[in-house]
Amino acid sequence: MEKELTATLLFSCPDRKGLVSRISHFFYEHDGNIIDLDEHVEPSERLFFLRVAWNMEGFTIPPESLRSTFSPLAVECNAEWSIRLSSKRHRIALFVSKYNHCLQEILWRHDRGEYDADIACIVSNHADLKYLADRYKIPFYVFPLIPGNKSEQEQNELALLKEENVDTIILARYMQVLSPVFVEHFPSRIINIHHSFLPAFAGSNPYKQAFERGVKIVGATSHYVTGDLDEGPIIEQDIIRISHKDTLDDLIRKGRDLERLVLARAVRLHLEDRVLVYGRKTVVFE
Amino acid sequence: MEKELTATLLFSCPDRKGLVSRISHFFYEHDGNIIDLDEHVEPSERLFFLRVAWNMEGFTIPPESLRSTFSPLAVECNAEWSIRLSSKRHRIALFVSKYNHCLQEILWRHDRGEYDADIACIVSNHADLKYLADRYKIPFYVFPLIPGNKSEQEQNELALLKEENVDTIILARYMQVLSPVFVEHFPSRIINIHHSFLPAFAGSNPYKQAFERGVKIVGATSHYVTGDLDEGPIIEQDIIRISHKDTLDDLIRKGRDLERLVLARAVRLHLEDRVLVYGRKTVVFE
Amino acid sequence: MEKELTATLLFSCPDRKGLVSRISHFFYEHDGNIIDLDEHVEPSERLFFLRVAWNMEGFTIPPESLRSTFSPLAVECNAEWSIRLSSKRHRIALFVSKYNHCLQEILWRHDRGEYDADIACIVSNHADLKYLADRYKIPFYVFPLIPGNKSEQEQNELALLKEENVDTIILARYMQVLSPVFVEHFPSRIINIHHSFLPAFAGSNPYKQAFERGVKIVGATSHYVTGDLDEGPIIEQDIIRISHKDTLDDLIRKGRDLERLVLARAVRLHLEDRVLVYGRKTVVFE
Amino acid sequence: MEKELTATLLFSCPDRKGLVSRISHFFYEHDGNIIDLDEHVEPSERLFFLRVAWNMEGFTIPPESLRSTFSPLAVECNAEWSIRLSSKRHRIALFVSKYNHCLQEILWRHDRGEYDADIACIVSNHADLKYLADRYKIPFYVFPLIPGNKSEQEQNELALLKEENVDTIILARYMQVLSPVFVEHFPSRIINIHHSFLPAFAGSNPYKQAFERGVKIVGATSHYVTGDLDEGPIIEQDIIRISHKDTLDDLIRKGRDLERLVLARAVRLHLEDRVLVYGRKTVVFE
Repeated sequence: MEKELTATLLFSCPDRKGLVSRISHFFYEHDGNIIDLDEHVEPSERLFFLRVAWNMEGFTIPPESLRSTFSPLAVECNAEWSIRLSSKRHRIALFVSKYNHCLQEILWRHDRGEYDADIACIVSNHADLKYLADRYKIPFYVFPLIPGNKSEQEQNELALLKEENVDTIILARYMQVLSPVFVEHFPSRIINIHHSFLPAFAGSNPYKQAFERGVKIVGATSHYVTGDLDEGPIIEQDIIRISHKDTLDDLIRKGRDLERLVLARAVRLHLEDRVLVYGRKTVVFE
Repeated sequence: MEKELTATLLFSCPDRKGLVSRISHFFYEHDGNIIDLDEHVEPSERLFFLRVAWNMEGFTIPPESLRSTFSPLAVECNAEWSIRLSSKRHRIALFVSKYNHCLQEILWRHDRGEYDADIACIVSNHADLKYLADRYKIPFYVFPLIPGNKSEQEQNELALLKEENVDTIILARYMQVLSPVFVEHFPSRIINIHHSFLPAFAGSNPYKQAFERGVKIVGATSHYVTGDLDEGPIIEQDIIRISHKDTLDDLIRKGRDLERLVLARAVRLHLEDRVLVYGRKTVVFE
Repeated sequence: MEKELTATLLFSCPDRKGLVSRISHFFYEHDGNIIDLDEHVEPSERLFFLRVAWNMEGFTIPPESLRSTFSPLAVECNAEWSIRLSSKRHRIALFVSKYNHCLQEILWRHDRGEYDADIACIVSNHADLKYLADRYKIPFYVFPLIPGNKSEQEQNELALLKEENVDTIILARYMQVLSPVFVEHFPSRIINIHHSFLPAFAGSNPYKQAFERGVKIVGATSHYVTGDLDEGPIIEQDIIRISHKDTLDDLIRKGRDLERLVLARAVRLHLEDRVLVYGRKTVVFE
Repeated sequence: MEKELTATLLFSCPDRKGLVSRISHFFYEHDGNIIDLDEHVEPSERLFFLRVAWNMEGFTIPPESLRSTFSPLAVECNAEWSIRLSSKRHRIALFVSKYNHCLQEILWRHDRGEYDADIACIVSNHADLKYLADRYKIPFYVFPLIPGNKSEQEQNELALLKEENVDTIILARYMQVLSPVFVEHFPSRIINIHHSFLPAFAGSNPYKQAFERGVKIVGATSHYVTGDLDEGPIIEQDIIRISHKDTLDDLIRKGRDLERLVLARAVRLHLEDRVLVYGRKTVVFE
């Protein structure tokens, strides 16, 4: 059975009267069958956000003319927007270092078919996790980092990502900071998992920081990567309770479970085009 | 400063192609400024649900013609629907017995202005909680129940509710079962709080049942009342963790906090016209 | 029915072999019937913590000799310790400013008998909440603050607290910073509620900070007050999920519910002598 | 570095005065260094529960005399009890059918070293999951079930478990009901994961039941298996929120994450000898 062809519009613009009516009128005019529509108005900044998923069957605009036909309306609204056809699957690169739990989780879910996307490759600065890539038959590339070669290696990585048509990078506990130059190539397209409830305990060793502060709850945060470390727009967060009985090792162990789940959920939201970014915040249409 | 006049449409009908476009076109035609639009399609039963809130300023249909102008579209769609103007505030009757915590919570929130609604009266089968009604200056009516007078007292209560133009009844730990005859007068308009995670531990003494079963989590459920006890459509649920250290009294104490919050949230959702009922389920547009 | 006389020991010292055996031997020797015993060893700092509750009936040490008889063992262990008889109820002062929700919550629970303690007085820098004090018949004292009189007013407050034999201060959204001089009089005896998940969003306007950062979860933290603002040992924390739909006002409203619950729980833990402080951390024997 | 030899006592008996003192005196007499002690008194049934972990170094009773030396005290107290030396690792059999997520989770955690136990074998009524057993190099045995051979196959399984010295069985979504005869061989030693918040939605297809009831929260329950299906003592439960947007498939997908975590936690608690069973309830010393 062939899957139905659908399309998803993400759209944001300055708010003004009648936007929902105006845009859904566009679908009305072209016999579009809306499957899902979510809108949000941010009142303090007067911004309008919209996600529309619709069926391409019976739609009077053919896929190849979609962008050009919709464009005038977007221009009129001064909007940022994207349209993705379901036939155009996201292509993912996973970046890892030595921790295997987040990689394992994403590979396992992908293998089960939870993500409607392709994993193009796994990139690492170490060879340690090659066995996992092999297990799931995903190409694994090592770009070792030594003092002074970071910029060069990032260029090599970018070349690979371009060749592989990657549009989404998942940092599955990648223990290197990407340069602003690298990040600029993938705006709102690099997903990181930080092992704390940001903005608490930003930086390194967050579990140690949490342990020393004596908090009763630890968290994990998945966010888009920007030039500012740990300051990118937050996609998803979750927490677990801890107590004085938990040692630092317990925090790390419990935190692993959290990191896996929070990253997995953020990845899902991104791949289903449910996240809109504005400033350092997100609108998440769940 | 006068509050803006807005209106809220709740709408459900059999699903078919183009419904969102069709209905938002109605607002487009009449210069309606949509503040909030939420839609949901239930795929297994092919039902369509919609909530639209819009500004009446500049809307080309005057308030008094709203229903008649919208009606043909609703008929065409074979829809169940309601429209409420923000100027028409909900009128609430609170039903209580002897427990004060849920009543206290609702009165306190109402007093703070959290609910944009009027509390018309408090009804009880006991006089115990009159002091709370007095504190917040709400009329308090006692309808004592003795064997054999239930049906008569329900008629008296219905007369009062009619006189007070009550549209919503909140059972804030009201320890009597309302008759189907009574319930029929307020379909999807009587909100109950059950002190368990329904359907677990329906019936009486749920905390005792939970204690004896040795569960590690207890819950509370707020639902609309139907003729079937504890079987009505669920609006909101929440839980707390317990352990072997908790006695039955601890469960009851912890449960009180939960009941207060869950009921308060359900009331809010109902008063803001965010709940649509179908069969014994709800769509909650949060 | 008279309540049984019980006693509670809180005890902490450098860890060493055989401490539990040694101390429970003390109760064994004196025919003590242990109701509840909790111990914890903090391995990284090698500290030992113990809470023992026991029945005084049949105990061979009379209440008046309790401290002197136990003291040698504590000295031998180089311990910090306290013993409280259940007949000696905690005496509380509530400090408030203008927000009523936390005060209301504590008064309501006290009124229900949830706290086995006396509320000696309510202290405020404003007269606004006197009506609540009156409702529950608790003495209410206003100590207005104007530039330059803080130190003098704190002395007046201390005099009142001394006269009233207050041992525990609850800052129920008291909007003033207490001076280190004041705090020193009540070490680990002043409980504050901070309306964020500390250490995230310390300082003023945490909901605004959280809103602007775009977090998906907000929290509340109850902690002991020390000389360092928002840095005191954490007793209890909890969180709720928020989304892009929540305005700053929604955050504040939802946060109120959280503040009430988290403060209420921390107060309970403190009043039942379940919290031991070391450095800026706590051991909480729940 | 060799791991220290420790021992863990689990002990329950009718409550009476002085039990904690009496038992810790036993450790005091024999120079036992208590690492961790937890006790609980169930007041309604007057039962006493104790877990003590201690270091065998310096303990004046040698491992081989442990049981015989402790026995008189246990007899005196009319106790049920067990002592396990850390050198005697638990031996696990995993029972599975076709779903891989729970098996995957347990194998992965075992592989990481999270469980201080041996997985002796994987048992299934189907060959489907052999690839996972192979991946982690665990022996995999298929006992196909056809009408009429269940009792015979259970005997074969019991023979295998005996040969492999298995003391703990984990039903990682094993889709067969074990006979009471089989269960009797492993009292409080068979851990199941039920994919609902028991006692809600016992029996088959709990997600479908939950979906049709329109609950706002779904749960998972890990419990010991007894002769009564889904009625065994609960070890651990957890929940996730769902909404009207979730289809039955979404419930199943979200539920998988929950099942993995809840089962993994229950297994950990069991393997660390933290669970005591009485009637159909548990005491869990976390």
